[in-house]
Amino acid sequence: MTFEATTSIRVRYAETDAMGIVHHAVYPIWMELGRSDFLRELGQSYAEWERQGVLMSVADLQVKFRAPARYDEQVQVRTQLLEVNRRKLTFVYTIYREGTRLAEGRTVHVVTGPDGRARTLPEDLLRFVRSRLPALAELPGALPG
Amino acid sequence: MTFEATTSIRVRYAETDAMGIVHHAVYPIWMELGRSDFLRELGQSYAEWERQGVLMSVADLQVKFRAPARYDEQVQVRTQLLEVNRRKLTFVYTIYREGTRLAEGRTVHVVTGPDGRARTLPEDLLRFVRSRLPALAELPGALPG
Amino acid sequence: MTFEATTSIRVRYAETDAMGIVHHAVYPIWMELGRSDFLRELGQSYAEWERQGVLMSVADLQVKFRAPARYDEQVQVRTQLLEVNRRKLTFVYTIYREGTRLAEGRTVHVVTGPDGRARTLPEDLLRFVRSRLPALAELPGALPG
Amino acid sequence: MTFEATTSIRVRYAETDAMGIVHHAVYPIWMELGRSDFLRELGQSYAEWERQGVLMSVADLQVKFRAPARYDEQVQVRTQLLEVNRRKLTFVYTIYREGTRLAEGRTVHVVTGPDGRARTLPEDLLRFVRSRLPALAELPGALPG
Repeated sequence: MTFEATTSIRVRYAETDAMGIVHHAVYPIWMELGRSDFLRELGQSYAEWERQGVLMSVADLQVKFRAPARYDEQVQVRTQLLEVNRRKLTFVYTIYREGTRLAEGRTVHVVTGPDGRARTLPEDLLRFVRSRLPALAELPGALPG
Repeated sequence: MTFEATTSIRVRYAETDAMGIVHHAVYPIWMELGRSDFLRELGQSYAEWERQGVLMSVADLQVKFRAPARYDEQVQVRTQLLEVNRRKLTFVYTIYREGTRLAEGRTVHVVTGPDGRARTLPEDLLRFVRSRLPALAELPGALPG
Repeated sequence: MTFEATTSIRVRYAETDAMGIVHHAVYPIWMELGRSDFLRELGQSYAEWERQGVLMSVADLQVKFRAPARYDEQVQVRTQLLEVNRRKLTFVYTIYREGTRLAEGRTVHVVTGPDGRARTLPEDLLRFVRSRLPALAELPGALPG
Repeated sequence: MTFEATTSIRVRYAETDAMGIVHHAVYPIWMELGRSDFLRELGQSYAEWERQGVLMSVADLQVKFRAPARYDEQVQVRTQLLEVNRRKLTFVYTIYREGTRLAEGRTVHVVTGPDGRARTLPEDLLRFVRSRLPALAELPGALPG
């Protein structure tokens, strides 16, 4: 069992901008793909969570950009769950291309119902996620400066 | 009372692509803005229709591209309702910039409920829309070739 | 050698809208992915064409929507080249999910240089593309009604 | 002369997601609109900067989300320039709707040429921007927690 998911993405033409590179607002979308895959590799499905009324609303988003990506390139998103409790999840991401680091990201999510109100993660779900993540404490607590 | 709506849009940087021009998938979004404004100028609100369970699902989309648009330019969308009955609405659009025609578009919508199933436009809504559109028959029936 | 390319796409959350389904302006982006893959399977790279100053500008776009797609679903785009000459290429697309047809599309492209002006496809490129496409004449000439 | 720009945006249907609210990746795009308007109100044009080879590449992006926005709502982006020197600009943003704060953002930009390499802001441009911003020191240095 791995504690990180790696998502492979081929850059879409529609994701580029007039600078000839991927527009910065695309990275949060790639991070979301990483998050989906992370849960899937844990044996979970966010689509299924949603049907059961357990939503992860984004409360905080941070991205540091190191190098640009271009059309048709193959980029990777490595996703890790940094912290989880009944009310909040924090994910960290590294986006890279063949060894070149393109960006790092971090998102904080609060657990809400379909009405947008805060709720708690079902106890069994929390236990399950935690049981698969024994090494959480060893992850870095912040983005590199 | 006008039978067309004009929507003014300043081109966003995020809407451009690596060719330095607005990506073609942005035009359907601009046409949707035109549609919203058209209903608003009729004294209607699509947000309100939706709350009442009357949705316009896009069934057909067509765009002809004549000339490119670029970042920061001010473009206009002129929207007309070509045809309306209890089950279907057809809108046509002209997108231009200071007299230069950039694109023409056409969308066909079927009336559905929130479940995606076909339903009919409420009779009073249909009557209202039609009463404001006496000149409908004079509009061209097809995109210029 | 196949005369069509099949592109597999997992629906992104960011591609959905408040109706709970994929927004219609996303389909032209999926069709563009299909086009990229089609050229790649022919042994070509559109990124390389672009570096050599051979661009395909979208002149005409058409999509017929049959059934909605939802977050996390796996959809396929089947792409075929309907027609090609020195100045113009026409692609047709079928978008489906496990046997259910979601949409059909068609794009017409004119060959341009980086300045946006019409140019012709290099003779060897045209010959190459054609040599791989002997069955072109057998494709349907229009979208089903 | 004001030291902030206010940008009014009507929420597009295409900006919503299956949660029924604006997708979080849209906020960086709105902040970019705020940035464009900020420069315009200073009598500058980022399109013109770009033609002269002065680009602002996004190096860091941060958004805190407080409350959701929905289709057709009118939201405002208030943009301020927090810090500027020859190599770097930092903008801060408040996004709100009729007194309700929806989000706060912050972007850091490095000055680059069209080739993506770091360069310095032309001296007269830096002097001009600074001359219009005497109160810069009074702005808060960080996002509220």
